[in-house]
Amino acid sequence: MKINKNFLDLEASYLFSTVGRKTREYIAAHPDADVIKLSIGDVTRPLCPAVIDAMHKAVDEMADEKTFRGYPPEHGYDFILDAILQCDYIGRGISMQKDEIFLSDGAKSDCGNIGDIFAVDNTVAICDPVYPVYIDTNVMNGRGKNIIIMPCGEETGFLPELPDESAHTAQNSNTTTAPDIIYLCFPNNPTGAVAPKSYLKKWVDYANAHHSLILFDSAYEAFITDPDIPRSIYEIDGAKTCAIELRSFSKTAGFTGLRCGYTVVPHELVFDGTELNALWGRRQSTKFNGVSYITQRAAEAVYSLEGQKQIQENLSFYRENARLIFEGVTAAGFKAFGGKNSPYVWLQIPEGYTSWSFFDELLDKCQVVGTPGSGFGKKGEGYLRLTGFGSRERTIEAIERIKKYFGK
Amino acid sequence: MKINKNFLDLEASYLFSTVGRKTREYIAAHPDADVIKLSIGDVTRPLCPAVIDAMHKAVDEMADEKTFRGYPPEHGYDFILDAILQCDYIGRGISMQKDEIFLSDGAKSDCGNIGDIFAVDNTVAICDPVYPVYIDTNVMNGRGKNIIIMPCGEETGFLPELPDESAHTAQNSNTTTAPDIIYLCFPNNPTGAVAPKSYLKKWVDYANAHHSLILFDSAYEAFITDPDIPRSIYEIDGAKTCAIELRSFSKTAGFTGLRCGYTVVPHELVFDGTELNALWGRRQSTKFNGVSYITQRAAEAVYSLEGQKQIQENLSFYRENARLIFEGVTAAGFKAFGGKNSPYVWLQIPEGYTSWSFFDELLDKCQVVGTPGSGFGKKGEGYLRLTGFGSRERTIEAIERIKKYFGK
Repeated sequence: MKINKNFLDLEASYLFSTVGRKTREYIAAHPDADVIKLSIGDVTRPLCPAVIDAMHKAVDEMADEKTFRGYPPEHGYDFILDAILQCDYIGRGISMQKDEIFLSDGAKSDCGNIGDIFAVDNTVAICDPVYPVYIDTNVMNGRGKNIIIMPCGEETGFLPELPDESAHTAQNSNTTTAPDIIYLCFPNNPTGAVAPKSYLKKWVDYANAHHSLILFDSAYEAFITDPDIPRSIYEIDGAKTCAIELRSFSKTAGFTGLRCGYTVVPHELVFDGTELNALWGRRQSTKFNGVSYITQRAAEAVYSLEGQKQIQENLSFYRENARLIFEGVTAAGFKAFGGKNSPYVWLQIPEGYTSWSFFDELLDKCQVVGTPGSGFGKKGEGYLRLTGFGSRERTIEAIERIKKYFGK
Repeated sequence: MKINKNFLDLEASYLFSTVGRKTREYIAAHPDADVIKLSIGDVTRPLCPAVIDAMHKAVDEMADEKTFRGYPPEHGYDFILDAILQCDYIGRGISMQKDEIFLSDGAKSDCGNIGDIFAVDNTVAICDPVYPVYIDTNVMNGRGKNIIIMPCGEETGFLPELPDESAHTAQNSNTTTAPDIIYLCFPNNPTGAVAPKSYLKKWVDYANAHHSLILFDSAYEAFITDPDIPRSIYEIDGAKTCAIELRSFSKTAGFTGLRCGYTVVPHELVFDGTELNALWGRRQSTKFNGVSYITQRAAEAVYSLEGQKQIQENLSFYRENARLIFEGVTAAGFKAFGGKNSPYVWLQIPEGYTSWSFFDELLDKCQVVGTPGSGFGKKGEGYLRLTGFGSRERTIEAIERIKKYFGK
């Protein structure tokens, strides 16, 4: 039996594991230290009352033979697919069909598993810095040598530029054609950059012209308040023939501990004469068995009138945290990006530090944990990601410490 | 962008979808028919009180900032891994370590996803008849041409024989070496066959001698009452160096609607100089984000003293259904197999019928739905699977109708 040797090409340790280990080691060495974590993008506010009520009700249904539910439909119950369709698409003026929406146990799973339906020899364009899962899952699938890095630095406003076909070259290969698959994530993790409609339109036109596929990760769309920033790729004309959209309830409604997301695969996506919708449907009905009934009722409650009000309170809370962090670090003399229409602040590190040496100093002097930008890719070097997902009190305390130590 | 063309080699329709469609069409044409489904292996008893209480408590924890939980550990919380370790392994005299157990959203997902960590060019030995997911996931991964079919008919007691190396040939290839990966499922789906210790020992010795890997699906182990039938492959000496075990809470505790299972990957499994445990850990932490906290507390409750008593009541209920079906169809003049230590009865169809023509007649004349054996593979032709997962009243009614129509 031979292993999949592509796994041996992966970085040995996942970024957040290293951040976690360093933090634990610091706490072990400084047991009295009052450490504040603004590192991982995990929510801290409890689930909203509408969601809690819906889950209690669903649990009770599972206790009674008359209302008990066994295997869920592999792509989601109609009640949740209808709610998603109406609220996230039709209600925002985007036409979509129910069978184009596939409920799942989260965007991270979908983001990795979607690779199953594509040929191994596709080239893949991925931003730098980036959510490491895009890179790692492609390496696992054997596309490690087909990755085209798209640099996203301050000089381009942290947005990837359209490929210059004469210049772009796949790593370790001579491919100079347009990338087959393009990963885009807006609002961006880790930089907090957002993509205006005119900018996304260029990518959609490019993908359609080259018959490329865009994988659009909009896990953070609920943070957008600016009406000029699209919340779905399908707000852009032409997107249905070139883009799959990945969505999550994790940040929208605080479901990180419940596990729920969905992926949209329009019927218009046809490659090699085959609908991607049919391929993804077959992948999911063969390798996945649906989402917990209780979680599906929780997700449905997010779309109720009360649920919508309640999740907005939490989202406003996190947005205000991000604003406070942005203003605080700016007041402390740092240059910073993001923090608006996004829960992430992308802090530019002063000269003389690397991402990791600044991480260490911030932990040692302020007892604040961030995520080193270099962990998201080479172009992340010189930056640190801070998140608005903490409590208000702890976020303010962290800012005060940063101001006190670094402030000029 | 090119699609994964292996998908085009899949059967167009999933077996259970066809059974479902035919049943719906019959009901539409006969709106007054009182149809009884003994086809799909889905549970019907409600979740037990210990599980319900644990879920209500967990839901309340998610409503309070002090007890709210975000991202779960990717491989499971300690509380559930400890419970599994103690009850399913240590308590049954099997040594195991906590980090060899990986919690997941179900055995179907694991069974498909585990293929990610193996090289595409491995040969794969799969029983016929078989749970279609083993075949389909290997076809998707590009191993369609490397599948070695192991016939399991009445002549071998529905157990696969050890490969005769001179005779075995991978489909469409000239491979005559031992299979690299061997799928075994006991108690078996669909035949209900069980594997005694002495029989499994031969497979373990074979796998160790040839450095093959056994994927042991024991999703139905909780139905075993006979002390001579092992419930875990690790009851067999030598299994830790050659076997991965896939487990599910679906049939054990009625979790089909909750989604939870686990996979055991001992550290002793070393292929190409690499621990499979590390590969599976990396696969799961990259492409999966853990199981709902509420579901994990539900699973923990299964292992409580009350939970254990309560799930046994449900298991006994289904076992009695299977016994009644077995006795009933035997009394009606059929030859049947399984139905003991298993929820499945494997009915031998009288001459003159195919699996599908018998399915049609059973539906038309008795309004009873079974699953045609041929849907599980060529060697399943001439059989029909009936399941013990229905209600008592409906199961008895189905048997009476079968006796009345077919009885001699």
